Amino acid sequence: MNRITQLFKIQYPIIQAGMVWCSGYKLAAAVSNAGGLGLLGAGSMSAELLREQIQQCRLATNKPFGVNVPIMYARADEIIQVIIEEKVAIVFTSAGNPAKYTGLLKDHGITVVHVVPGVKFALKAQTAGVDAIVAEGFEAGGHNGREETTTLCLIPAVKDQIQIPLIAAGGIGDGRGMLSVIALGAEGVQIGSRFVASIESSAHQHFKELLLHLKEGDTMLSLKKLAPVRLVKNKFFQSVQLAEASGASAEELLILLSRGRAKRGMFEGDLEEGELEIGQIAVLIQEILPAAEILGRIWNEFLLAKTQLASWSISNET
Amino acid sequence: MNRITQLFKIQYPIIQAGMVWCSGYKLAAAVSNAGGLGLLGAGSMSAELLREQIQQCRLATNKPFGVNVPIMYARADEIIQVIIEEKVAIVFTSAGNPAKYTGLLKDHGITVVHVVPGVKFALKAQTAGVDAIVAEGFEAGGHNGREETTTLCLIPAVKDQIQIPLIAAGGIGDGRGMLSVIALGAEGVQIGSRFVASIESSAHQHFKELLLHLKEGDTMLSLKKLAPVRLVKNKFFQSVQLAEASGASAEELLILLSRGRAKRGMFEGDLEEGELEIGQIAVLIQEILPAAEILGRIWNEFLLAKTQLASWSISNET
Repeated sequence: MNRITQLFKIQYPIIQAGMVWCSGYKLAAAVSNAGGLGLLGAGSMSAELLREQIQQCRLATNKPFGVNVPIMYARADEIIQVIIEEKVAIVFTSAGNPAKYTGLLKDHGITVVHVVPGVKFALKAQTAGVDAIVAEGFEAGGHNGREETTTLCLIPAVKDQIQIPLIAAGGIGDGRGMLSVIALGAEGVQIGSRFVASIESSAHQHFKELLLHLKEGDTMLSLKKLAPVRLVKNKFFQSVQLAEASGASAEELLILLSRGRAKRGMFEGDLEEGELEIGQIAVLIQEILPAAEILGRIWNEFLLAKTQLASWSISNET
Repeated sequence: MNRITQLFKIQYPIIQAGMVWCSGYKLAAAVSNAGGLGLLGAGSMSAELLREQIQQCRLATNKPFGVNVPIMYARADEIIQVIIEEKVAIVFTSAGNPAKYTGLLKDHGITVVHVVPGVKFALKAQTAGVDAIVAEGFEAGGHNGREETTTLCLIPAVKDQIQIPLIAAGGIGDGRGMLSVIALGAEGVQIGSRFVASIESSAHQHFKELLLHLKEGDTMLSLKKLAPVRLVKNKFFQSVQLAEASGASAEELLILLSRGRAKRGMFEGDLEEGELEIGQIAVLIQEILPAAEILGRIWNEFLLAKTQLASWSISNET
């Protein structure tokens, strides 16, 4: 038995990341119905919108689903309140101190998972009492750690230090990637970028289509002064780089960002002036597919790759 | 049969990277004697020193070994001449245009491998006629690609585009890491950082001991204006960052570097004022061991992890 499928009562240890502007109930329900764990991305929702999304998600699936909450989000308190009122069973917290809400959520019988970019934070989350850890590497889209540790280096380092179940994130977009991190000691995967390019994701069609044409080096870690985030290198990215290079303060950068850049890019499809968060692994995306098909393909590729790897040998291996 | 062990006539598909100041004949011969492929790092040698090192290596092992040559190295022409004169069987080229020496080396019956940070460069190397590719990710120590692609994203992308054998590098320091990149489609691994902390490496004892205490975030990509290189964040690193932040030109940075910083750090053990190149995976290093033992441990961990992975399952997998 796998601790991740047990913890969430799901069929496959594949979690769809709760991404801002991309992860509404249609995506989450589709992934959960297909046997994975779908997450709503509360980081771009008002409390009332989240309540509506949770209710819609319940109508669309009778399987478990969850909500991702960035702890530093201005509306996090209200969001957590709605989650408790609506009796959501699973919460993934990220970007903030796991001690803040874990106790409260656990008191309401909610399964809590925290997303971390490093060992230090993983230990802190374990101490806070979370049920599992997502360790996310430098190649991931969106918010990212200051240490810039890649998934390949991060997973074994975290695995060696924690006892609770470990989910790998960052750089995983197909079955080979999944096998690779399971080999490192992860017990499940969280996949974001690949699900952005699904039929059901709420990302703008322009953004989804852009993903089909990204090449290596087309995303880069930005906003290192504020909070590092991996972005597509579009016109907005260039203006952030320029501002940073000319010594802009954190406050000035915040003003640049506060013009609804993420919504404008990912949700409204302004590929030049909008903020476009996506991971390095987007280079492997070739089609916009139904979420259930993405999940099914990843799982089948994983099983095939696992079988092939088991028979991998050099003549003098034994 | 494995294409990498066949190509080099070695027992295990594990290559010890030819690193500046760390990879002399003692290390290369120890790795080759243990069944891997040892490489001399010519990038910090004069042509005459390399000749001596090749001759010493032949006395120390009758197994295959090779030489790594950074193509942009000022002495590369002389180095290549010595390699041909001394009838070295295997050359790894890096940091430069693979078309420059591949034809000449192949004309002399030499097996040629080229190190790349991306798909574009891998295709160029394949066209140049090399026998195999090393694809090296962002987490690697020393010189690094501008695209910042991590090993997890790089290996499948390169694998999908080339037909010749593929060796993974960057972030591999134990058997789990090796299994992880083999799962992605690599046929062998090149390991640098872990072998720096070997008895036989020519790194200064102070540098080796520093590696036992590195923590996440203690290395960072630097010198992005010139040619990106991953360094330990010591005093020298801080002065490079300061120079870059205050708008230093490439020429000014070159002057900062040209004071023999790499030798001073890695070979002479000045941990403050010297340049210290090492990969992120150094966080996993806990002991300075004989190179043969490092290789043996990695291989045994790899076999064990492979067996464990083969029996990994969730209840409803089949």
